[in-house]
Amino acid sequence: MVTGTDSSLTFTKLTSSPETRARAGLLNTKHGPVPTPCFMPVGTQGTVKAVGPDDLTEVGARMILANTYHLLIRPGPETVHNLGGLHKFMGWEGPILTDSGGFQIFSLNSLRKLSQEGVTFRSHLDGSEIVLTPEKAVAVQEVLGPDIMMALDECTPYPASRAQTAASAELTLKWANRCLKAQSPENSPAMFGIVQGGMYPDLRRESALSLGELDFPGLALGGLAVGEEPELRMEMIETAVEVLDPEKPLYLMGLGTPADLVEGIARGADLFDCVMPTRNARNGQLFTRTGRLVIKNARFKDDDRPVEEGCGCYTCQRFSRGYLRHLFVSKELLAFRLNSIHNLYYYFSLVAEAREALLEGRFKKFYSDFNSLHEGDALLS
Amino acid sequence: MVTGTDSSLTFTKLTSSPETRARAGLLNTKHGPVPTPCFMPVGTQGTVKAVGPDDLTEVGARMILANTYHLLIRPGPETVHNLGGLHKFMGWEGPILTDSGGFQIFSLNSLRKLSQEGVTFRSHLDGSEIVLTPEKAVAVQEVLGPDIMMALDECTPYPASRAQTAASAELTLKWANRCLKAQSPENSPAMFGIVQGGMYPDLRRESALSLGELDFPGLALGGLAVGEEPELRMEMIETAVEVLDPEKPLYLMGLGTPADLVEGIARGADLFDCVMPTRNARNGQLFTRTGRLVIKNARFKDDDRPVEEGCGCYTCQRFSRGYLRHLFVSKELLAFRLNSIHNLYYYFSLVAEAREALLEGRFKKFYSDFNSLHEGDALLS
Repeated sequence: MVTGTDSSLTFTKLTSSPETRARAGLLNTKHGPVPTPCFMPVGTQGTVKAVGPDDLTEVGARMILANTYHLLIRPGPETVHNLGGLHKFMGWEGPILTDSGGFQIFSLNSLRKLSQEGVTFRSHLDGSEIVLTPEKAVAVQEVLGPDIMMALDECTPYPASRAQTAASAELTLKWANRCLKAQSPENSPAMFGIVQGGMYPDLRRESALSLGELDFPGLALGGLAVGEEPELRMEMIETAVEVLDPEKPLYLMGLGTPADLVEGIARGADLFDCVMPTRNARNGQLFTRTGRLVIKNARFKDDDRPVEEGCGCYTCQRFSRGYLRHLFVSKELLAFRLNSIHNLYYYFSLVAEAREALLEGRFKKFYSDFNSLHEGDALLS
Repeated sequence: MVTGTDSSLTFTKLTSSPETRARAGLLNTKHGPVPTPCFMPVGTQGTVKAVGPDDLTEVGARMILANTYHLLIRPGPETVHNLGGLHKFMGWEGPILTDSGGFQIFSLNSLRKLSQEGVTFRSHLDGSEIVLTPEKAVAVQEVLGPDIMMALDECTPYPASRAQTAASAELTLKWANRCLKAQSPENSPAMFGIVQGGMYPDLRRESALSLGELDFPGLALGGLAVGEEPELRMEMIETAVEVLDPEKPLYLMGLGTPADLVEGIARGADLFDCVMPTRNARNGQLFTRTGRLVIKNARFKDDDRPVEEGCGCYTCQRFSRGYLRHLFVSKELLAFRLNSIHNLYYYFSLVAEAREALLEGRFKKFYSDFNSLHEGDALLS
């Protein structure tokens, strides 16, 4: 059990796997319980692209992510507040996590200026100058009103020199302290800190140790899935997890492929987010247990089978590969929704199966079954 | 009661309005009953744009339309057949009507060549030459497998000379006869004939009389809503209805605005189709009882009201005007679906209310209430 400004956020480990660090848990939030491990779909602009809240509930979403950077620029936190706060705004009654905006500023803005105080950048919409400080990141997220918010960090690029990485991790630690101080004494969402440290094991470890000492009810690993090899990514996760409090929930930011999720769960992560299921869906790439289908391929033209036999999603229950191919090549809007429904269902089912395996004490078998099915894909895709 | 090749298609008038030609009825099809009057949303390429079959059921759709022209070009009738026929292809279990392809050939193809035999045109996708004859229009629709198919007609343009209109109506009549002869003796969908005659009352009347004598279980009025004034449109409808068998279902093709529907119902029409609710939705124009909202307008930015107070659609039940504006200006895919759900719900509710008024003997009041609310919009929008 952990506490933060929002004392309603609690995390309970229900079980753990004897051979790995994997664990099933329950994260309680103001908007209901979240069984972990949990994959959060990304609602960048206040909507998970191409699907509605009804679809999200139907496919098994429990907690979703929204991007502070995008909502800050449009429609602005005041408008979200005027429209009833983030949950009412999006029509999503379950828990929501907002990121701090840091990742987008570093990945989308080439004209940013970084100082110890904060970061200055230009809106990608109208070029107007915006300053984001740790204090402002907290204030904006408090106005948006998620269940969990994130401290502002500097996402270390890859590759980065040792000196650059060390300086970046140091700044992230300073900002984490400032974020905690900036939290309103009342009605502030629970805040997670973000571990950086790049791809240097000792810097990762140091960042995890120092962030872990602060009064965050949960922690995240940032600066991963930024171009590094999967083996290196997993090494960094292991390095950080070794020194983090196992009683606190752990969020792997921006991960990832199905294999990333399974490997991350095996290493003790509880929360994940990634645009992959929805972005790939919009590009016509559909996940199955045995590989990804590129739905526009001519071989699917007269294929009356569902995307995946036995899949319980609305798309597979009602539509054929041939129809989905037709929608996609015809650029029909329904293609984006149906493909997204399938891919999200795939992700949620995978994580739900991992959880069930953990609760039933057979995670090791689940893990080896997954890896034998995804041979050559497990750490590489 | 009427019969055709598909003897399962029947039409029963349940009531009629003493002051007008309006009537409530029940059209029975192989895929279930259709309460009339009925508005059919348009599923051009085998999907009603931006919504799924689940949404269509939810908003109250009973029968939908698919375009033979588009499906002929892509994916081709053989593929639709291989994927289980039109209903299974689209995942829509209710009744479907296909048009003959004629309207699109005349409206989309500037390079068409018309002869007594048929029409030659080039695919708008790859430029390949395609010939459509009355016999082929029937054969293609029989392969697609709708509940109701349409005879091939020549859609008379507007304006058109009297000689051109007369020749066009004559060709449509010949083609109607050839379509009837071309029907397979078994398992052929019921076929409706199409009345033409342009904007010349005597030619309209003549076309209606001659088409009405043929063995069609239902008739349609074509060549309307092609640019003429609403008053002229209504005059042509009245002229045709006067001489058509009131026991047969009447379909007003391509109509129209909410006012067109109410006026058409008052003149005895049972079936309607139009892209307006879905197309306007995608353009951000939302129907309400008191006018249309242009959702991108800045005045909706912080408006936390639904599109229409009291509306029972998913969009109005869960989302604010401010959120819909945000989705639309952010070019989010969900905007198209939520807007389409509202507009379709509006159309279906309007027609359902007209039907209820007819069944309860208060259609005249419904009609005058509608016109006083839509003052200046009734025949002009």
